[in-house]
Amino acid sequence: MKETALTLGDAFNQADFIVGGHGSRQVKVLQNVLDQIDGELFSDHYGNGPLIEEFQQQMADVLGKESAVFFPSGTMAQQIALRIWCDRKGVKRVAYHPLCHLEIHEEDGLKELHQIETILLADKDRLICLEDVQALDQDIACLLLELPQREIGGQLPAYEELEAISAYCRERGIKLHLDGARLFEITPYYQKTPAEICSLFDTVYVSFYKGIGGIAGAILAGDPDVMQESKVWKRRHGGDLIGLYPYILSSQYYFNERIGKMELYYEQAQELASLLNACHGIHTLPEVPVSNMFHVHFALAAAEVEPILVQMAQQYGIGMTSYLNKTSGNSCAFELSTGDRYEKVPQDKLRAALEWLDQELRKQVR
Amino acid sequence: MKETALTLGDAFNQADFIVGGHGSRQVKVLQNVLDQIDGELFSDHYGNGPLIEEFQQQMADVLGKESAVFFPSGTMAQQIALRIWCDRKGVKRVAYHPLCHLEIHEEDGLKELHQIETILLADKDRLICLEDVQALDQDIACLLLELPQREIGGQLPAYEELEAISAYCRERGIKLHLDGARLFEITPYYQKTPAEICSLFDTVYVSFYKGIGGIAGAILAGDPDVMQESKVWKRRHGGDLIGLYPYILSSQYYFNERIGKMELYYEQAQELASLLNACHGIHTLPEVPVSNMFHVHFALAAAEVEPILVQMAQQYGIGMTSYLNKTSGNSCAFELSTGDRYEKVPQDKLRAALEWLDQELRKQVR
Repeated sequence: MKETALTLGDAFNQADFIVGGHGSRQVKVLQNVLDQIDGELFSDHYGNGPLIEEFQQQMADVLGKESAVFFPSGTMAQQIALRIWCDRKGVKRVAYHPLCHLEIHEEDGLKELHQIETILLADKDRLICLEDVQALDQDIACLLLELPQREIGGQLPAYEELEAISAYCRERGIKLHLDGARLFEITPYYQKTPAEICSLFDTVYVSFYKGIGGIAGAILAGDPDVMQESKVWKRRHGGDLIGLYPYILSSQYYFNERIGKMELYYEQAQELASLLNACHGIHTLPEVPVSNMFHVHFALAAAEVEPILVQMAQQYGIGMTSYLNKTSGNSCAFELSTGDRYEKVPQDKLRAALEWLDQELRKQVR
Repeated sequence: MKETALTLGDAFNQADFIVGGHGSRQVKVLQNVLDQIDGELFSDHYGNGPLIEEFQQQMADVLGKESAVFFPSGTMAQQIALRIWCDRKGVKRVAYHPLCHLEIHEEDGLKELHQIETILLADKDRLICLEDVQALDQDIACLLLELPQREIGGQLPAYEELEAISAYCRERGIKLHLDGARLFEITPYYQKTPAEICSLFDTVYVSFYKGIGGIAGAILAGDPDVMQESKVWKRRHGGDLIGLYPYILSSQYYFNERIGKMELYYEQAQELASLLNACHGIHTLPEVPVSNMFHVHFALAAAEVEPILVQMAQQYGIGMTSYLNKTSGNSCAFELSTGDRYEKVPQDKLRAALEWLDQELRKQVR
């Protein structure tokens, strides 16, 4: 049959309703922003000018830090933060989770460009805890914590655990850096403001194209002397562009538009995960999401799940995912993040689709 | 008097006609591009997708290289090109002009991030010539030539000199890299296509916000294996953004709009330099421009020139420069690049202003 020959990606793109995210990454995302802007507004200029300075101040205030610097990417911002802490301590060694973005997605930039040695704390399938930090047998300049830990479904430690790690690091002269790519998304679970969470950290990175839904760009925040030094490294990395305003304006626009919706996304993620967990052969990680994201695991191989999801997209118009990653054993998984699209999905269609999915999985998963 | 209390910058910004450049760096520069784009167009995605791939191919064709990679900045692109050549030869040493961009504007990124040693060829006030390269007493992986040499007014070697340097480097196993930030602007003088000039070089960087007038962004071009490697370093530098399309779309738009106007800008620069050289106490460098740019030198201190230029802007509506740099001795200078604004300047006003300037300078310069 021609229909079932569709790939999962195609079926997903053709679905009437897509469950996750804010929308497609299309040029209109930027056009919508620029339509609101006075064309006479001047570009930022190599990191200076009101356009960049005002947004940096806004973000410094939100994060409860004295100073903030806009970067084109988190990759650049985080390497630089770690480099500064290493230089200050004279110890070129940091620690982070084995599935840290710097370890698996950055072609070893930290090691190749900065000659910084890394210690992998905890196991791949669990969070870093205080005992891991206490058990370190080498001195480190900085510990990086990612909240939520994306590659294991966006898990979070208990807030008390975080406070204990922070206190321990301060006591031992270890700087604590936050990979807060999804910081805003965890505030409803912790019932803390971004500034409250950031107060546990010496430097903080946040992203504007996850829950915020901008185009690209990052903020690094901390003490003014550290931020000043980060600007020198930003120039060295080639990130001190004559104009970063396309990213700044879109980051600011979507931040203002969506920062108040994090509670909603969080509740929607919990609802959606609950519906998925009710399906035979499916479990989510975490079982109860602690942000707007979670991973969906099938107790069945990707080759067997794929035609079912293709059929679901075609019959019920529900696009759940465009891909499936093989996981250990006869199983597969994908990542879901709730955003503006979720509330456009008719609940009756979604529930009917998932009931059908449950039945299909019952036929194949023992 | 209130009027003469204006700074040169303010007088320049308030002038009816500005002599150089394409226009102010305002958000409308990007809005004008996006107004022409279908909002459904998909973003590039971490260096992939038709939007980036098609522009890279267009530029590879223009530059006569097999492959091209878009970077957020020339700073990033050029460090990476030099790093690759150093790694391949196993020699972490390159040579360039003492006023090379990498030496004076990049906070020593090449040295701090890549541990590459640099040899400064020629003197600050003259171009690198074949004899300088022949006189090298240490092996280098790569020689960087900047065409035109911006910091000395945008001077160019004779084309035969370039060919001789290129042939010598090939013979000696030295890679030749072109800092072509203003490559398109020199094609009328050499009467060569970009591809013809680039054929003398192993790797080439071009910029899109000088004569092209885009927002930011750069292309690095060369052999496919080198370009493939450059993508790995682009990720390490933090330049492999999820979407670079604001820069790509604007680079492409203004390239297509202005590439045919380089001859015009070149002729205008010659005309303008000639008018300025007719003023007492002014000379341009080069005396006859070889691109759209040149430097304007006054045989008078900045503090004395400034009120004259302020008065000229107010009385004649002609904005010549917003700044003056002190140069050696009792003199000062500024940079001029002709662009779309020059043809909007009424010739009678410009000539009247310069006649008045000539008279004022005669009063003060012996």
